Amino acid sequence: MDYSKMCPKYECATELLGKKWTGMIVRVLLGGPKRFKEMKEQIPEMSDKMLTDRMKELEHCDIIKRNVYPEMPVRIEYELTEKGRGLEPVIQSIQDWGENWC
Amino acid sequence: MDYSKMCPKYECATELLGKKWTGMIVRVLLGGPKRFKEMKEQIPEMSDKMLTDRMKELEHCDIIKRNVYPEMPVRIEYELTEKGRGLEPVIQSIQDWGENWC
Repeated sequence: MDYSKMCPKYECATELLGKKWTGMIVRVLLGGPKRFKEMKEQIPEMSDKMLTDRMKELEHCDIIKRNVYPEMPVRIEYELTEKGRGLEPVIQSIQDWGENWC
Repeated sequence: MDYSKMCPKYECATELLGKKWTGMIVRVLLGGPKRFKEMKEQIPEMSDKMLTDRMKELEHCDIIKRNVYPEMPVRIEYELTEKGRGLEPVIQSIQDWGENWC
């Protein structure tokens, strides 16, 4: 890799990932589709508002999708898109580093 | 990897990386020790204050070290520690994802 100059694609990727909670949300969803409440269970210290905002942003960036099942009561689940699942090696490498250094 | 519950070590790692500019700074320093001015050249949109603050934080977390060479005028360079260089696979995986999806 050429570290002598910044790469716009890297910059775009790191801008997305370099936001509080994004790495946590993606990790949770790598475990499969989740309802809002199930996500909160794994990230209890994040406020509802923060999770809602971040999910909207990730949906806008096509990292996650929101599925609405017309049951009674309505069931809403979030899951990673293909683009989102593509982040698994990133999440794995962060995990590896954390295990060695945190 | 067990995605069914959050891992504290992952949480610690992502808290550090999930901060604006951190991924950019680490990438620049993977290219070798740099002076403040040289870092700015690769990340011109980051303010001096922001770079200074982030560097202090990364020094505090033992990701980078600050070397002062008693020349005239004094030369100050920043470089990654072993812990910081350990982030190379993370940076590489972000780059790979960015190339596919950004």
